[in-house]
Amino acid sequence: MIGRLNHVAIAVPDLTAAADQYRKTLGAQVGAPQDEPDHGVTVIFIELPNTKIELLYPLGDASPIRGFLDKNPAGGIHHICYEVDDILAARDHLLASGARVLGTGAPKIGAHGKPVLFLHPKDFNGCLVELEQV
Amino acid sequence: MIGRLNHVAIAVPDLTAAADQYRKTLGAQVGAPQDEPDHGVTVIFIELPNTKIELLYPLGDASPIRGFLDKNPAGGIHHICYEVDDILAARDHLLASGARVLGTGAPKIGAHGKPVLFLHPKDFNGCLVELEQV
Repeated sequence: MIGRLNHVAIAVPDLTAAADQYRKTLGAQVGAPQDEPDHGVTVIFIELPNTKIELLYPLGDASPIRGFLDKNPAGGIHHICYEVDDILAARDHLLASGARVLGTGAPKIGAHGKPVLFLHPKDFNGCLVELEQV
Repeated sequence: MIGRLNHVAIAVPDLTAAADQYRKTLGAQVGAPQDEPDHGVTVIFIELPNTKIELLYPLGDASPIRGFLDKNPAGGIHHICYEVDDILAARDHLLASGARVLGTGAPKIGAHGKPVLFLHPKDFNGCLVELEQV
C-alpha cells in the first residue's frame, strides 16, 4: 500500500539557522521559506536526491507544531510521510485494521496541494505518520 | 555534501508486531530480523521504492536504544541517516563548522558494513543524524 517516503518533517526552533545549517554545514539544496497559513507553519523544503526534508516552523498562534516545540525546545523529527495511490482506500484499509486516523477521517489538502491524512502515533510505534495521495 | 536519505530508523517496543504492521497494515516489503550484536540491536529493514525504514529493537543489556525506549515506551523515530561520499572529509568539515561528532570521531562500521558517524542531536535541531559513507 505505502509507496515512496515523500518526506521527513523536522520541527525547528530557528528556521533561518536550520536552513543555513543544511545549506552550508551539510551542503544540501535548500529552498525558500513558504508560509502555509492553512496549516499554521512556515516550511522550507530540502531536496535530497531521493526524497525531501521539510523544515517546519510555527506560523500563527494556533500552529499545530507550537506544542511540539514547547516539549522539544531543540526541535525534533515531527512526522514522516508515505505516499499512497488512493488515500480513501488506504484510510478504509487502515480503519478496518484498527488504526486510528486523526481528525474527522476526511482527507485535507496538505502543504503540497494534495490530499493527506495523519495516523495516530500511538498506533505506529510512536511515530506521527502522514499519508499523501500522489 | 549530504546525498541520499539512506534510512529513517524507528525504535519499536515489539519488533514482531511492528514488522507485521508494516507488512499487513501498511502493505510494505519487510525483511527478516537481523541481529547486530556489535551494535546492540536487532534490525528489520523495510524497503520502500526510494529509501529504507530500519526498525530497531534492543539486543543485549547494553543496547544503545534501551534508554530511548525507556523514555519513549511506544517507540519513536530514533535517527535519520544521510549518505556521504567521503566520511572523513565530511567529519572534518562538520568539526570545522563547530558541530559535534559523537564518540571518538573515528568512523565505526555500521549495520550495513559501511563507515558511519553520528552527530550530536543538540547541534541538528534535536535530530540524531547518522552519516554513512556509500
